Amino acid sequence: MIDLSNIVADIAAEMAAAPDRGEVASYIPPLAAIDPARFGMAIVTSDGECYEAGDAGSPFSIQSVSKVFGLTMALGQHGEALWRRIGREPSGSAFNSIVQLESEHGIPRNPFINAGAIVVADLLLGRSEPGEVLGEVLRFVRTLAGDDAIFIDDTVAEAERATGFRNVALANYMKAFGNLNNSVDRVLGVYFNQCAIAMTCRQLAQAGAYLMLGGRNPETDRNVVSVQRARRINALMMTCGHYDGSGEFAFRVGLPAKSGVGGGILAIVPGTASIAVWSPGLNDRGNSQLGSLALERLVQRTGWSVFDPPAC
Amino acid sequence: MIDLSNIVADIAAEMAAAPDRGEVASYIPPLAAIDPARFGMAIVTSDGECYEAGDAGSPFSIQSVSKVFGLTMALGQHGEALWRRIGREPSGSAFNSIVQLESEHGIPRNPFINAGAIVVADLLLGRSEPGEVLGEVLRFVRTLAGDDAIFIDDTVAEAERATGFRNVALANYMKAFGNLNNSVDRVLGVYFNQCAIAMTCRQLAQAGAYLMLGGRNPETDRNVVSVQRARRINALMMTCGHYDGSGEFAFRVGLPAKSGVGGGILAIVPGTASIAVWSPGLNDRGNSQLGSLALERLVQRTGWSVFDPPAC
Amino acid sequence: MIDLSNIVADIAAEMAAAPDRGEVASYIPPLAAIDPARFGMAIVTSDGECYEAGDAGSPFSIQSVSKVFGLTMALGQHGEALWRRIGREPSGSAFNSIVQLESEHGIPRNPFINAGAIVVADLLLGRSEPGEVLGEVLRFVRTLAGDDAIFIDDTVAEAERATGFRNVALANYMKAFGNLNNSVDRVLGVYFNQCAIAMTCRQLAQAGAYLMLGGRNPETDRNVVSVQRARRINALMMTCGHYDGSGEFAFRVGLPAKSGVGGGILAIVPGTASIAVWSPGLNDRGNSQLGSLALERLVQRTGWSVFDPPAC
Amino acid sequence: MIDLSNIVADIAAEMAAAPDRGEVASYIPPLAAIDPARFGMAIVTSDGECYEAGDAGSPFSIQSVSKVFGLTMALGQHGEALWRRIGREPSGSAFNSIVQLESEHGIPRNPFINAGAIVVADLLLGRSEPGEVLGEVLRFVRTLAGDDAIFIDDTVAEAERATGFRNVALANYMKAFGNLNNSVDRVLGVYFNQCAIAMTCRQLAQAGAYLMLGGRNPETDRNVVSVQRARRINALMMTCGHYDGSGEFAFRVGLPAKSGVGGGILAIVPGTASIAVWSPGLNDRGNSQLGSLALERLVQRTGWSVFDPPAC
Repeated sequence: MIDLSNIVADIAAEMAAAPDRGEVASYIPPLAAIDPARFGMAIVTSDGECYEAGDAGSPFSIQSVSKVFGLTMALGQHGEALWRRIGREPSGSAFNSIVQLESEHGIPRNPFINAGAIVVADLLLGRSEPGEVLGEVLRFVRTLAGDDAIFIDDTVAEAERATGFRNVALANYMKAFGNLNNSVDRVLGVYFNQCAIAMTCRQLAQAGAYLMLGGRNPETDRNVVSVQRARRINALMMTCGHYDGSGEFAFRVGLPAKSGVGGGILAIVPGTASIAVWSPGLNDRGNSQLGSLALERLVQRTGWSVFDPPAC
Repeated sequence: MIDLSNIVADIAAEMAAAPDRGEVASYIPPLAAIDPARFGMAIVTSDGECYEAGDAGSPFSIQSVSKVFGLTMALGQHGEALWRRIGREPSGSAFNSIVQLESEHGIPRNPFINAGAIVVADLLLGRSEPGEVLGEVLRFVRTLAGDDAIFIDDTVAEAERATGFRNVALANYMKAFGNLNNSVDRVLGVYFNQCAIAMTCRQLAQAGAYLMLGGRNPETDRNVVSVQRARRINALMMTCGHYDGSGEFAFRVGLPAKSGVGGGILAIVPGTASIAVWSPGLNDRGNSQLGSLALERLVQRTGWSVFDPPAC
Repeated sequence: MIDLSNIVADIAAEMAAAPDRGEVASYIPPLAAIDPARFGMAIVTSDGECYEAGDAGSPFSIQSVSKVFGLTMALGQHGEALWRRIGREPSGSAFNSIVQLESEHGIPRNPFINAGAIVVADLLLGRSEPGEVLGEVLRFVRTLAGDDAIFIDDTVAEAERATGFRNVALANYMKAFGNLNNSVDRVLGVYFNQCAIAMTCRQLAQAGAYLMLGGRNPETDRNVVSVQRARRINALMMTCGHYDGSGEFAFRVGLPAKSGVGGGILAIVPGTASIAVWSPGLNDRGNSQLGSLALERLVQRTGWSVFDPPAC
Repeated sequence: MIDLSNIVADIAAEMAAAPDRGEVASYIPPLAAIDPARFGMAIVTSDGECYEAGDAGSPFSIQSVSKVFGLTMALGQHGEALWRRIGREPSGSAFNSIVQLESEHGIPRNPFINAGAIVVADLLLGRSEPGEVLGEVLRFVRTLAGDDAIFIDDTVAEAERATGFRNVALANYMKAFGNLNNSVDRVLGVYFNQCAIAMTCRQLAQAGAYLMLGGRNPETDRNVVSVQRARRINALMMTCGHYDGSGEFAFRVGLPAKSGVGGGILAIVPGTASIAVWSPGLNDRGNSQLGSLALERLVQRTGWSVFDPPAC
């Protein structure tokens, strides 16, 4: 019998003592200012329990983890037609690489690299205004988490916009290939703000629960997406969720998961658990150093890897 | 309750009627001569049953599926030190691309692209003779499958050797970076012959059963590898098992699997099943067209995707 | 004795009859509307004569030929320090490729690809306003050509700005690497307008005369640049003046030259002649089809290639 | 009036005192053993004089300089059809890069990178035996230089063959694309031996004189190649003669030239001079550090750059 309370507490204690915490993202001041000592973890299980430890109640910038929610919404609006404009393969390169876009004519490799999420933002925009769309995104995430306190951190969004030249480059590059319908400004207005959503581990684990439950949100008991779509989003998280460190993460942890440069990771154990971890120090691939390690230890103690025979 | 007998028979019937069977590999005559109408499927379950249909008893050239067995052996001999010479990330490019080797100084991206498997062959060689090593590989596969009838198809091996200029290029390129200890001739002697192993679906599903059972071979009831290692091999099969079509396969099928240019695929449902399918026609990524489709249908009917909540 | 009057007239007649005129650039309406039948040629010799034929008096959009004048000005203002931010090697790829920028950290390969000319525009801007800088560029070109009628075609500039997403991408990408000091908007304000300068063949050949005369402008009899700098600009035109067709142009024509997407080419015979040709149809590398052919014929009849022993 | 005797002596004295001599090639022992203090220079002028200094009479391994002679022979045998199998553009990458070959389907960028010279060797082979072809190459070079003492250094050839894994990779890679007719072994038999030709500066300057004189060999007073072909070989030397340092060399020196990893450079002043320099230390692009510098100084003092107005 797995005692999750103890396991979560033990892992949090081990992480508090970890000597190598990685490097906090420094490209914008609001992220650079985060204390590298922070660590939080929350596990929502299929029976509705929530186990947490450390700073599980502190909001952090979810950054690219938001790409999971953006993709879920865009699939709901556009269905499989979305895949005409975005691929489904690991990129084999860094999160913000532009090289692949040239050889593949403006079609990003997958929805979880920046270029892919920018196309998703364009799809979400449709003919609406950025403000409306952000309102929808926020409502969606709040509904998933069952918590209206979730907010967009304007300081982060503003800092991203002021320094996000690579993302502006990616967006213009795809625009040149005809893969953005809206203006770059409008699309990035959605993208930068969506990345600036702040959530706690508790909220994030709750919000991701539909991916554990075949698409059903336990808060509302309604289907957010179909079983098939939940499965496929999980698959994309497994092969593409950690940029050029996705293979390593699958090797060590073995769960579909999506990381963000703010140090958060959302990981899914299908049928069993939705997990959020947060620690702001990053490894050399841009994924949370201690977040990855905490998940590796969790999986070792629970047997939750999808590549293991189910634990008895 | 899943009725595997019926499901397997139905899928085989559907595949027999499939209009688009892909293109049979044409680079060597022994493969080009295979009838595209062939289709076989075998499922070995955790309780030791075997369900099969179509040409499940016909031997075919397993080609790159052999990389799973080679990796398993090499990990047993060299342990984690193997990863100093081979990466663990999806390649983002074709199975025989040489580009990545240049920028990454002769370290192949993963053990399932050709370059990676060539380094594995060098590790297996150590200071032995190619003939001895091939004997060991064959014994290993025969033991896994519990069937001494498994053989190396000399005609295929000879044809590979006569035309395998790209593989000779890859091997020499890595040799230039110091990532091969043995001569290119000796290493490729092992590699080409290992790829020429012929197996039936039945034998292959049986041989892969240890990956379903946390490393334990049900034939001998002994551990082939540790639980952790079995999990990790499965993870690599998921992220890297289908070359530049790995993301698509995970998206559609959701099982760790390894394909070969002979049209075979070995897929694992951890704790539940080891599956082999064979149909020689390939899709544009070089993976079996009907083999992939058959697995997609199987997963739809069984709920076996690792990204779904476990079926009740 | 070379009879340039006859040679120029003959070539113009041959070009008028040429069956394959290439494709006129279609990415902006003002260029797409140009009649592909146009052809002009003007040769200014070291003794001050001007030989011309066809539409040598019709203004056309000089586009990338302007990069020669921009580079000349920027070298005058910043000297060799310019080369800390721009390379001097052929790019081996298309004029607007972004791939090389990623691997070389935002340093463009040479000043004649778009990315390089954008950095030159940033250097020209310094702390001035775009309007002032454009005024200086225009004065510089007018002085070189001895003709105040030269103008910037606002329709072209506006169309470039409205559709130049790739250039916006390139600029933002370099900005991300810290290789632009000014805002992207300001830099591209200079760049797009500079590319929209309209000149006749006569004006262009005159304006380029300083590169024939070791840096001395024959109009003013003053040095525009030093002998060394003129030589080096010629060298860059030889190795980098035709994007990924530079080798072919050197092979066929053997003169330092710079082409533009408007169909113009400026070519230099050191000590002997400054040549401008214009024909709007482009070959598959984006260089004037008939302009290149006319220069090839001119060199055959005059022996002017720098790779030939001087004609007696 | 240029006093070449003094200029050559001065440059040799300056080079003897140069503090930074680059790094001697270390990939094979026979090259690694060369004393970095060596420096030689020889200039053959159009009137048949020879000016020399330093170690101009010491034989050194001409390595890639031999590609000029190989190309000349192959053009004589196959004419312009050669260009169906080899490009004419600068490569934008290192001399032994394999990346470009993948995207361009086995067609090397130009005849002066290794891949291109290997295709040239295949063309020279035709249906002959490697030994015969090497005999022809040697006779050709001896005739050009008017000196039967020129030899192939077997120690160098043997060392190249024993360690040339990258070249073996390049050759096999092109073979895979169908761009070699002969076996890799036979082609590289020619290639490695041709690169191992040893010549003195005096012999090399003499051998290159046909490229100064529009194709006419002054020794025999016969045409080695046509005027057009000599011009085009010079053009290729200008744009592609120094690998990924060709732009820099054109910028600094401004002469068509070909370098070799043994530290030799052959440079041509059309109509005026054929120059050989040798100093074994290489710069970071693999070209002779002092050889390049000596040529830069020579051009400064003589005004011989093809990009300068002719000196009076």
